[in-house]
Amino acid sequence: MARITKDPEKRRKEFIAAARELFIEKGFDQTAVSDITNKVGMSHGSFFYYFKSKKGVMEEVINDNLTSWKDFMLDLVANEEMNALQKMQIVFGMTVKSRKAKQNINEFFQKEGNAVMYREHRKKSREIVVPLITQIVEQGVNEGVLNIEFPRETVEYVGYVIENLGDSLKATSSEEEYYKKIRALEIFLARVVGIGENKFNLLEFEGK
Amino acid sequence: MARITKDPEKRRKEFIAAARELFIEKGFDQTAVSDITNKVGMSHGSFFYYFKSKKGVMEEVINDNLTSWKDFMLDLVANEEMNALQKMQIVFGMTVKSRKAKQNINEFFQKEGNAVMYREHRKKSREIVVPLITQIVEQGVNEGVLNIEFPRETVEYVGYVIENLGDSLKATSSEEEYYKKIRALEIFLARVVGIGENKFNLLEFEGK
Repeated sequence: MARITKDPEKRRKEFIAAARELFIEKGFDQTAVSDITNKVGMSHGSFFYYFKSKKGVMEEVINDNLTSWKDFMLDLVANEEMNALQKMQIVFGMTVKSRKAKQNINEFFQKEGNAVMYREHRKKSREIVVPLITQIVEQGVNEGVLNIEFPRETVEYVGYVIENLGDSLKATSSEEEYYKKIRALEIFLARVVGIGENKFNLLEFEGK
Repeated sequence: MARITKDPEKRRKEFIAAARELFIEKGFDQTAVSDITNKVGMSHGSFFYYFKSKKGVMEEVINDNLTSWKDFMLDLVANEEMNALQKMQIVFGMTVKSRKAKQNINEFFQKEGNAVMYREHRKKSREIVVPLITQIVEQGVNEGVLNIEFPRETVEYVGYVIENLGDSLKATSSEEEYYKKIRALEIFLARVVGIGENKFNLLEFEGK
């Protein structure tokens, strides 16, 4: 007869989800393992069955986030119906859109005590994202849509802009300033990839 | 009759210089106030006469660094003999050159335990540098040398690339990769500011 225990994988995910919420709410340093176990309603011991330490569950939170981003990007790279420009539009558009998400990962990293994690996350996320976007750009060069001599390097440089964009947009104090930044970015990106300045529309996906 | 005591301002600077060296060598978290006082040959009490805490002296180390950078930039902005392109060439060229400096500020921030300071430093350094470079770019637009619709925003975006450049160049594993990154950056910058792709020569100041 089957014993009625919860699926361990399901429980692991509950811990990760609870940890993520607490890290966002209180910050990593200010969250105790007991906060996480209380939230899930499990014992201290059970936490350490799944994770080595608080840092361990933090790495899972980050990996989780990166994995869903990676899956999305892999699908996009493999998509044969869109041209490179449409794909880039989606990637850039999503970065702009993410400003609207309330409890996004940036807020989490802005918490005091999350600075080390922040750097770790950026590093990992670059390792995943840069090669995938490079593939999209190379598709665009092959299609004759984009004009870039050094795809890999150019994508890296654009990445530094994109990863700071969320914070930059959040720091705007007026709608005017916000739209200026978006328009400036559209021109910036279009020039870098060697296309016309009106080719990118980064607000298309904002749902306005 | 004058008492033979050391100038307090001079002593303060000795503390700051010693702290900087130790932070680079051991990292901020791993440096004790006693390490700093030992290095200078002063008492614990004298340290706290000048600084509130270890974090206090760290802020001075950062400010020191930013002040010399700011002075340099102010001179450059005010210089009436150079056109904007020459000025930008100097700013970008210096960023590339700084790879060669052995104990530079980046190494310091790469030390574990310096992550919070790192973010603080970037923020302050942006507040200083972005408006100054914007002035140079606006000079270039007025001179008709550069073609930029949104100088302030574009400088901000370029800044994100530049502030990651040191680490990026350090991570290259071959001379070929290094020069590819430089050339890609020359094209990237030239396109962004709307000039010919061969207008920037970032290695000119490398002393090679």
